Amino acid sequence: MPDRLRGKNVNPDFSLVAYLSDRKALVDGALDEYLPGGQNDPSVIVQAVRYSLLAGGKRIRPILCMAAAEAIGGEAEAVLPAACALEMIHTYSLIHDDLPAMDNDNYRRGRLTSHKVFGEDIAILAGDALLTEAFRLLTNREGMPGMPPDRLLDVAREIAEAAGYRGMVGGQVLDIRAEGEEVGLETLYAIHRRKTGALLRVSTRVGAILAGAGKEALAGLSDYGGKIGLAFQIADDILDVEGDPLLLGKGTGSDAARGKVTFPALMGIDASRARAADIVMDAISSLASFDDRATPLRAIAHYILERRS
Amino acid sequence: MPDRLRGKNVNPDFSLVAYLSDRKALVDGALDEYLPGGQNDPSVIVQAVRYSLLAGGKRIRPILCMAAAEAIGGEAEAVLPAACALEMIHTYSLIHDDLPAMDNDNYRRGRLTSHKVFGEDIAILAGDALLTEAFRLLTNREGMPGMPPDRLLDVAREIAEAAGYRGMVGGQVLDIRAEGEEVGLETLYAIHRRKTGALLRVSTRVGAILAGAGKEALAGLSDYGGKIGLAFQIADDILDVEGDPLLLGKGTGSDAARGKVTFPALMGIDASRARAADIVMDAISSLASFDDRATPLRAIAHYILERRS
Repeated sequence: MPDRLRGKNVNPDFSLVAYLSDRKALVDGALDEYLPGGQNDPSVIVQAVRYSLLAGGKRIRPILCMAAAEAIGGEAEAVLPAACALEMIHTYSLIHDDLPAMDNDNYRRGRLTSHKVFGEDIAILAGDALLTEAFRLLTNREGMPGMPPDRLLDVAREIAEAAGYRGMVGGQVLDIRAEGEEVGLETLYAIHRRKTGALLRVSTRVGAILAGAGKEALAGLSDYGGKIGLAFQIADDILDVEGDPLLLGKGTGSDAARGKVTFPALMGIDASRARAADIVMDAISSLASFDDRATPLRAIAHYILERRS
Repeated sequence: MPDRLRGKNVNPDFSLVAYLSDRKALVDGALDEYLPGGQNDPSVIVQAVRYSLLAGGKRIRPILCMAAAEAIGGEAEAVLPAACALEMIHTYSLIHDDLPAMDNDNYRRGRLTSHKVFGEDIAILAGDALLTEAFRLLTNREGMPGMPPDRLLDVAREIAEAAGYRGMVGGQVLDIRAEGEEVGLETLYAIHRRKTGALLRVSTRVGAILAGAGKEALAGLSDYGGKIGLAFQIADDILDVEGDPLLLGKGTGSDAARGKVTFPALMGIDASRARAADIVMDAISSLASFDDRATPLRAIAHYILERRS
C-alpha cells in the first residue's frame, strides 16, 4: 500500500487489490447471469452483447456504485443489478464510440472491436440492446427485492439523465465536434464533465440513493464522484501518451493522431499529473465526514492516479 | 364510417378521424415540450432528435397506449408521458434502421433521413439519446403525479423487454439476417412479432397497467395489441407494393428491391389482405367484454386495414 494511504480514516488492513478483484468477480458473475447464452448461443445479438460486456473491463462504475452503498452502511450485493446496469451503459457507449462513423477504432480491451467481429449493423444493435437491457435491470423489482420503488425510479431517472443528451451522449457530440478544432481548457472540462464524468458521478449517487443516503451523505458522495470522474479522464489522457500498449490492450498515441484535444496537449504531462493529484485529494476531502466504511472509495481515488492500464 | 363499424359496441357518433387528430395533437405538443429547443437551439443533438421526433408520424403507439387506458376508464392525459416514451423508442429504431449499415434509406416520412442531414455519427447518437430519454420519461415520478411507483416500474420494465434483444432489437437482427434468404411464413411471423409486434403490443399493455387494469382486462388488451401489431405489419407490406409514394412519403417497392421477404411475396396480395382482415377481426373479438369506452380501439383496428399511408 502506498504510504499516503496510511492516513486518517484508512484501515491499515485494507487491501485495494483484493477488494477490486473481489468486486470485479461479483460483477462479472452477475453480468454473465443476466445475459445467459454462452458461446453456443445461436443468437448473434446475444453473442455480440456478451462479447463486449464480458471482455474484462475494470468494472470501475459498478465498483464505485457498490462502494458508495457500503460507505453509508449498505450491502454491495443489494445494489448489484443497478451496478451492472451502469457497466452495460458504459459498454454500449464504447461499442457505439468505436464505430467507423465515430472514432473508427479496431481494438478495445485488447480485442477486435464489436463491428470488426460482427459487422457494423450488429454492433449498432448490440449497443442498443445493452442500453435497453440496462433499464430493464434498473426497473426490475424482483432483481432488488425489498428496495423501495421510489428509490428504483429515482435511480433509473438519474442514470437516464447522466447517460443521455444532457450527459454522456451530449459529451460525445461535443467531443466529435471538437476534433481538429482549437479548444481551450474550459471546453475540455465541459466535454469530460459530460462524456465520462456524468456516468461516473451518477455511479456513486446510485449506490448512495439505493442504500438510503441522507441529503448530506449524498452530496459528499456526489461531489466525490464528480471529481473522480475528472481525475479519471486526465489519467486516461496521460496513459494515452505514455501508457504501455500491452497493458492497455489498445494502441497509445491515438488521441494525438486523431487531433483530439487532451489535458497533456493543453497543459503538458507534468501539470496534468499535478492537476489529477489535486483533484483526487479534493475528492477524498469530500468524504471527510465518512468513517472507515469509505476506505475503499478513498483507496480507489488513489488508484486512479497510479493505474497503468 | 364503413358499414361494418356500425355494429355491436360501436358508438355511432364516434369519429375516428377527429379522435386520431385530437390525440396526435396531444402527443405532438407533449413531445415538443419534453425536448425543448426550437430551430435556434445551438445543440446539434437536440436539433437532430427534434428533426426525427417531430417529423409528423401517425403516433399510433402513443394513441394505442392512451386508448387502452381509456378503455378501462382511465384518462388519456394521465398516461401521456409513457405514451410519448413509446413514440421516442419507435423513432430511435427508425433512425438506426435507416443507417447505411442497416437499411440505408435516404427518405423517411417524406424527408431526408437523419444521417443524410446530420451525418452518421450524429444520427447514431440521436437514436441513443431518444432511447435514453424515453426511459427518463418513464421513470420520472413528477411527470405522472399520483401514479403508484410500482406501476411505473412495471411499465418501464415491460417496455425494456419489448424494445430490447428479446423484442424489437432481436426482430431487427432476424430481419437483417433474413435479407436475400429463403424464408417461410413461420420465420416472417417470428420477425414481425418481435420487430414491430412487441412494441405495439406493449403500447396497449402500458396504457392498461398505468390505468390499473385487472388481470382479465389486461389479457384482452394485450391480445388485441399483439394482433393489431401483426395486422399493421401485413398492411405495411401491402402498402409497400401498391401504396401511393406521395402519401407514404417514401418510395414503394423498396422491400422487393432489397430482397426483403414480405407477406405479399409469400402469399400474394389478395391472401395477405384477407389474412390482415381476419387478424383485425380477431383483435376486435379480444375486446368483446369491453363496453363502448373501447370504441376507439375497435375503430383503430379497422383503420389499419384501410389506411393509405
